Amino acid sequence: MITSVSNPKVKRLLHLRKQAKARREAGLFLVEGEKMCKEAPKDLVAEVYISESHVGAGEVAGWGRIPVEILSDSVFRTVSDTQTPQGVLALVRQRERTLKEILSGRQIPLLLILEKLQDPGNLGTVLRTGEGAGVTGVVMSGDTVDIYNPKVVRATMGSIYRVPFCTVPDLAEAIGDLSARGIVCYAAAPTESLDYTEADYRGPTAFLIGNEGNGLSREAILAAGKRVRIPMAGEVESLNASMAAGLLMYEAARQRRKPG
Amino acid sequence: MITSVSNPKVKRLLHLRKQAKARREAGLFLVEGEKMCKEAPKDLVAEVYISESHVGAGEVAGWGRIPVEILSDSVFRTVSDTQTPQGVLALVRQRERTLKEILSGRQIPLLLILEKLQDPGNLGTVLRTGEGAGVTGVVMSGDTVDIYNPKVVRATMGSIYRVPFCTVPDLAEAIGDLSARGIVCYAAAPTESLDYTEADYRGPTAFLIGNEGNGLSREAILAAGKRVRIPMAGEVESLNASMAAGLLMYEAARQRRKPG
Repeated sequence: MITSVSNPKVKRLLHLRKQAKARREAGLFLVEGEKMCKEAPKDLVAEVYISESHVGAGEVAGWGRIPVEILSDSVFRTVSDTQTPQGVLALVRQRERTLKEILSGRQIPLLLILEKLQDPGNLGTVLRTGEGAGVTGVVMSGDTVDIYNPKVVRATMGSIYRVPFCTVPDLAEAIGDLSARGIVCYAAAPTESLDYTEADYRGPTAFLIGNEGNGLSREAILAAGKRVRIPMAGEVESLNASMAAGLLMYEAARQRRKPG
Repeated sequence: MITSVSNPKVKRLLHLRKQAKARREAGLFLVEGEKMCKEAPKDLVAEVYISESHVGAGEVAGWGRIPVEILSDSVFRTVSDTQTPQGVLALVRQRERTLKEILSGRQIPLLLILEKLQDPGNLGTVLRTGEGAGVTGVVMSGDTVDIYNPKVVRATMGSIYRVPFCTVPDLAEAIGDLSARGIVCYAAAPTESLDYTEADYRGPTAFLIGNEGNGLSREAILAAGKRVRIPMAGEVESLNASMAAGLLMYEAARQRRKPG
């Protein structure tokens, strides 16, 4: 059992929890809690850490050949990112796709393109809702919040394992690439005239969602072929970014459920 | 200028920030930031507090007859609920409606009924999105997170001033009351068979949204006349509560925009 926070493995966990750079270099990320650890694809789980008071109920044996370490409760609390740790966390290997891989399936593409989304909860919710709506994948600009940030991972509720995603260095270029493949890209902008429920999303479709504070950049809007607006009553200036993404994705899902 | 955190006004601000009970007893709540303070209905603003480094640019004079106090920067940081305080906060009078008041307008009712919503961000987002979708009002069970919690207030982005809301002691009774007034109440439940986009919300409508962890209670589901399901692809077990609310409200708004 590891009882000291100066243990090298503990220090490594702390780095991986706090620093996107450390995660990127190691190709690993932290997941916490019974459900999130159990749902992780077994071939991607690198190491498991269990708190001393959580050991017992077959917790260790269940992981087979994956290395398991026991941490004292106080050390576990230190490495945990949550207020009330559930006593189990795993280091999971990162698995990012390429745009080509995301588009390789047979489904008519329904993509979400995120420009500089900054709030971890928003990105997590976008993945969770995206899986529910049946998206093909999520494309992110390089300056989007790190998808392996523990707060993002938690907010995905497991969708991070199942929704394919990729990061692109140049978003406008990626949008051009998608357009060339026949995917119609819609920028969500509050000042546009086309109501989002009046465009047809039954063909290959991508939605662009911008940063929480500033919306989409001019370049991204120009790169997108089309623009839609989510109507807002009252004095609302904008919707929450993940809410806007959810409304667009579910509108596409609605149209695809009832063809004709 | 107030420079001590043991000043009675400062202590009072801290109580009002932290305790729902203190807010209820005083009938006041805290709002922070330039935009949120400026948007507050003037007749409801009781007191304004400005940090020493924020004073100057006509900040004090602009409040007219409303009492303004200057706080030293360090005292302001103590009372502020945000990481990077904007230097202005106001005490605003609570203004809750009755169910009857909410229904007194001419609009065809579109209500949101919340049972035991616990996450401040979710409640705030529900109000913000609800205003955008054009809801008549929001009805909350008594065990819903305090709507005057600073985190809720911030997440509403000002909608707390504009969307009418009320708290009811007995939710099932309130649902019965609404049904008796001809409002069709839809419980959102993932196991139901009716797709939420296939019900007709152009008449008087209310949507019931349950607690983040446990969903709606059996009593609430039974009290509601109808049930709908938001289809979910993949392995998603549920959507975020505010996302579910947003999708339902915007589907109603969509149907109401295009009659026939």
